[in-house]
Amino acid sequence: MSGRGFEASEYRARLKAAQMAMVRHELSAILLTTEPEVRYFSGFQTRFWESPSRPWFLILPASGGPVAVIPSIGEALMRTTWVSDVRTWSAPDPIDDGVTLLAEALREVAGEGKIGVPSGMESHLRMPLADFGRLQAQGLEFGDDAGIIATLRAIKTEAEIDKITQACKIAGRAFGRVNEVARHGVKLEDVFRGFQRLLLEEGADWVPYLAGGAGPKGYADVISPAGPQALKTGDVLMLDTGAVWDGYFCDFDRNFAIGVPSRQTQSAWGKLQDAAIAGFEAAKPGAEASDVWRAMAAIVGDGDGAGRLGHGLGMQLTEGLSLTKRDHTVLEAGMVITLEPSIETDAGMVMVHEENIVIRDGGAQILSPWASGPLPVL
Amino acid sequence: MSGRGFEASEYRARLKAAQMAMVRHELSAILLTTEPEVRYFSGFQTRFWESPSRPWFLILPASGGPVAVIPSIGEALMRTTWVSDVRTWSAPDPIDDGVTLLAEALREVAGEGKIGVPSGMESHLRMPLADFGRLQAQGLEFGDDAGIIATLRAIKTEAEIDKITQACKIAGRAFGRVNEVARHGVKLEDVFRGFQRLLLEEGADWVPYLAGGAGPKGYADVISPAGPQALKTGDVLMLDTGAVWDGYFCDFDRNFAIGVPSRQTQSAWGKLQDAAIAGFEAAKPGAEASDVWRAMAAIVGDGDGAGRLGHGLGMQLTEGLSLTKRDHTVLEAGMVITLEPSIETDAGMVMVHEENIVIRDGGAQILSPWASGPLPVL
Repeated sequence: MSGRGFEASEYRARLKAAQMAMVRHELSAILLTTEPEVRYFSGFQTRFWESPSRPWFLILPASGGPVAVIPSIGEALMRTTWVSDVRTWSAPDPIDDGVTLLAEALREVAGEGKIGVPSGMESHLRMPLADFGRLQAQGLEFGDDAGIIATLRAIKTEAEIDKITQACKIAGRAFGRVNEVARHGVKLEDVFRGFQRLLLEEGADWVPYLAGGAGPKGYADVISPAGPQALKTGDVLMLDTGAVWDGYFCDFDRNFAIGVPSRQTQSAWGKLQDAAIAGFEAAKPGAEASDVWRAMAAIVGDGDGAGRLGHGLGMQLTEGLSLTKRDHTVLEAGMVITLEPSIETDAGMVMVHEENIVIRDGGAQILSPWASGPLPVL
Repeated sequence: MSGRGFEASEYRARLKAAQMAMVRHELSAILLTTEPEVRYFSGFQTRFWESPSRPWFLILPASGGPVAVIPSIGEALMRTTWVSDVRTWSAPDPIDDGVTLLAEALREVAGEGKIGVPSGMESHLRMPLADFGRLQAQGLEFGDDAGIIATLRAIKTEAEIDKITQACKIAGRAFGRVNEVARHGVKLEDVFRGFQRLLLEEGADWVPYLAGGAGPKGYADVISPAGPQALKTGDVLMLDTGAVWDGYFCDFDRNFAIGVPSRQTQSAWGKLQDAAIAGFEAAKPGAEASDVWRAMAAIVGDGDGAGRLGHGLGMQLTEGLSLTKRDHTVLEAGMVITLEPSIETDAGMVMVHEENIVIRDGGAQILSPWASGPLPVL
C-alpha cells in the first residue's frame, strides 16, 4: 500500500498550474473556502469540516506561496503542511469572524486586482453571505475563477489515482464479504451498518457515503436511507459506497440476489453489464462525456430520469463532468470517472450498476474490481 | 427506542413559527439550500448531500406550505415527506441548473417581496455563486433571513432531544467497549477504525465525525487525523465522536489512560471533571453562554487558545451558540449544548473533556453518560 499524503513537489505543481491559468485570466488571486479546494492546494486534512461553526480560507496569489487564513484551532495541523504563511484568529468571533484578517491578506496579495472565487457548477462559497458582503464592501473586487480550480482538479496525478485505487480495493474486499451481513430476514438498516463495518475492517478511513436499496424488481431510488424492512428471498439488493482512503473516494456499487434471481432480473443485470462495457470502450481521450453516455444509453435507455450515467470522482464522491447527453466535456488522460448505467425494471423501479475507471492515453483502465458473470446470490 | 422521523404536526409547527417571524421581519419567503435547513422543514433525509453535483432548494413562503425545487433524482424520496409542492428538473444541467425553475417559484411565492437567505454565522449558501447572481439579475430581492432559521433550530423539541439522547446512548455504549480496540501497541488509525466499528455495532446510523489524539501528556490538537503511530504505555488517549441516529448528532469525548496515568494527568483529569460540573451548574435558563464559559474557564483557563469550551448541538455536530467569553446568547429551555473544557498540560499540549446536556426550566439535564471517577485505564 502506498504512503499517505503527497510530496511537496505535487502541491507546488498544482499551485504553479493554477498560477499560470490565473495569469491568462488576469486574476491577482484565488480565494478558496471549501474542504476539497483548501486540501488540494495545502494538504490540510481533517474531518473537522463537519463542524459548520468556523470558516477556513486559503488564498492562492498569482505568484508566491499560498496564504492560509484560518481559525487558531487549526494552526497546529496547518503547520504540518507545506504552507508556511499561516494567519489565525480566535474563531468563532461574533463581531469579526476573520473578515478583517482575510481582507488584509487579500489586499496584500491582490492589491487592486481581481480575486477569483470558484462560482461554477458544483461549487459554493463556504462562508456566511453577510461576511462575503463585508469583504466586498471593503472595495475588494471578486469574480469567477474562470473554472481554473475545477479544470485542474479534473486531471488526476498518478499519486491521486493510486489513492482512489486503494479506496476501490478496500471496497472490493468489503463487497466480497457482503454475505456476512446480508441475507433473507436481515433489516436493510442492519445491512447498511454491517457493510460500513466491513469497509472499516478492510481499511477504509471512514465511510462518508452509503446508499442502496432492495426490492423484488429493483429499488425506487438510490438515495433513500435504509429502513427497518427486512430483505426477502427474491429481492435484489444494491449497495453503493463512497469509502475514503487518505482523502480520496471510491464510488461504485454491487447488486446481489437474495435467493435465485428472476429471469427478468438476470436480463436487467446482463444489460447493465453490457452498458458498462460499452461505456468503458467509449471512454477514450478525445471523446465527449456525452459520447460515453450515448454508448450506455443505447443499451439501457435514459435510466431513472435523472439522466446521469456516471460522473467524475476523486476528493469528492462526485466531481467534475457528468455522463449526460448535455455534457460535452472532452475526456483527457488522468480523468477518473464512474460508469453508472441505470435501467428501469418496473414502473418507478430501477437497477443501477457502477464501476470506476481512469482515462489513459490508449483508453480506459479499470480501478474497481470489474463485476462480471451472474448476479451474486446471497 | 423511539421511532424514526417526526409527526407532520412537528413540521407544521416549525413552519408556523418561521412564518410568524417572517411577518415580523417583513420577509415574503425564505430560501433554504443546505442539508440541515432543508431537512428541518421537510424531513428530507439522505446521505446524497455528500455529492456536490446538485443544488437543492426549499422555499418557505410567508403563508402556505413549503415548495421543494429539487433535482428529479430526489423526487421519490421528497414525495414521502409532508411536502406536497415538489418541482423538479433534470440535474445537473450545464445550461440552466434549476435557476429558471427556482426563479419562477420564488416569484410566484414572494412576488416583489423580500426573500430571506440565512447569511449569519455558521451559514452558507449551497449553490454556485454564479447561479445566485443569475437569480438576483432576474430582479428577485434577497436579504438576510434575520437569523430566523438559526434561532428556531436552537430550541429543540422533545422529539429532537430524544433523538440526540439515542445518539448519546449509542456512543456511551461504544465508549464502554474501547478496551476492545485500544491498548499499548495498537496504531491510532486502527483505534479510529475500530471505534467507528463499535459505534455502528451499537446502533449508529453512521459516523460523520471522529477525532482524537494520544500522547504522554495529552495531544497537540483535537482535529488531526489519526496516523500510524502506536499507542504506548503512559499515553493519554482521547476519542471524540459525532455519531448520528436518525439525523441527530451526539458530540462528546472520553479520555483513557494507557497503563497507570501520571499524577499530572490525573490532576488534569480532575480539573476537567470539576470544570464540567461547574459548567453544568451554570447552564441555566437566563444565563449567557459566556457565563457558562466563565464558570469553566475559572478552573481550566482559556483552554487551547481557540477559547471555545462548548457549543450547541443537534442536526449538526456543532450549531448555534459558542461557550466563549464573546458569546452573549441567553440560554433557554430546550437548547442542547456541549460542555467541552480544555486544559493545557504542557507547551502546545492539551486534554479535552466533553459532555452533552439539555437546558431545562430548572437547570441542565445530562444527555451523555456523565464521566466520573478516575480516568479509565486500558
